[in-house]
Amino acid sequence: MTWAAETASGAPLPRIVTEQLTAEAFRPFGDVLEAEGAPDRLINQGLCGRFHDRARLDFGPDGRAGISLFKAEPRALPYRLEMLERHPDGSQAFVPMSLTSFLVITAEDKNGRPGTPRAFLTQPGQAINLLRGTWHGVLTPLEAPGLFAVFDRIGTSANLEEHWLDTPFEVTRG
Amino acid sequence: MTWAAETASGAPLPRIVTEQLTAEAFRPFGDVLEAEGAPDRLINQGLCGRFHDRARLDFGPDGRAGISLFKAEPRALPYRLEMLERHPDGSQAFVPMSLTSFLVITAEDKNGRPGTPRAFLTQPGQAINLLRGTWHGVLTPLEAPGLFAVFDRIGTSANLEEHWLDTPFEVTRG
Repeated sequence: MTWAAETASGAPLPRIVTEQLTAEAFRPFGDVLEAEGAPDRLINQGLCGRFHDRARLDFGPDGRAGISLFKAEPRALPYRLEMLERHPDGSQAFVPMSLTSFLVITAEDKNGRPGTPRAFLTQPGQAINLLRGTWHGVLTPLEAPGLFAVFDRIGTSANLEEHWLDTPFEVTRG
Repeated sequence: MTWAAETASGAPLPRIVTEQLTAEAFRPFGDVLEAEGAPDRLINQGLCGRFHDRARLDFGPDGRAGISLFKAEPRALPYRLEMLERHPDGSQAFVPMSLTSFLVITAEDKNGRPGTPRAFLTQPGQAINLLRGTWHGVLTPLEAPGLFAVFDRIGTSANLEEHWLDTPFEVTRG
């Protein structure tokens, strides 16, 4: 066993097995943005399909939309999940700028704390939008360059709540 | 000569040579979104750099922000430019979801018509945001899958003006 796979008392860490990311499974947490099925419109003389307005965006009463880029260190599975966070004032969309999978960890809220997390593996070409206030893990690409466009709320509030787990989870590939 | 390289009278088409996309060259037309230089913030325990709020977004008085996906047929250089368009009611950002170059054609406005176009070639990892009302060519990826996340205005107006050129341009690699 490695340092990541057991608690201080030597017990194995509780496990979360990754699931394939689908729009239906992810709906309570947010939106899957993908060019699947027929486009909503054909534009540019039929040479481009538009999959229209696919994210439930929410920038709160005092926020505005902004685009930032995130460049994150790639991680590996199994992955030790120690913390979840949420943004009470706005939604947050992550668009990978490479055709790679990334790990998306979310949890329902249980009385102000995250419930048991779920872990989703994206397919290349999928992006996600997290609903305002959704508990989630930090950005975890699985391959370089870990480059994402992030469409989220710009505002003056902290807009961040962190929850450190008493016992981490080990996320393993399903 | 091919059909694309001459006018009806047999004269060669006027040429536009591509330029490398840089933030400075592109500023009159919009923003280059790229993770270059030091990030504005380090987040997630130092494992992620945030290049913060890099786009001049504008969704007009009656619009809202939306995320759509575009899937466009790849084109090739030389490219025959026949039309420019603009969106009077909102900005439009294009984020490539693969690490590939694409062609960005823009023009200044000259009394309600596009002036002489300029053509930029992106580097992999660069995205762009077009300012509200900027004349531009249609989305022209140069490689499959031609998949982009588009952040633009959702609203009820047509928000589209097209200008078909009397004489097309031939865009060639610089």
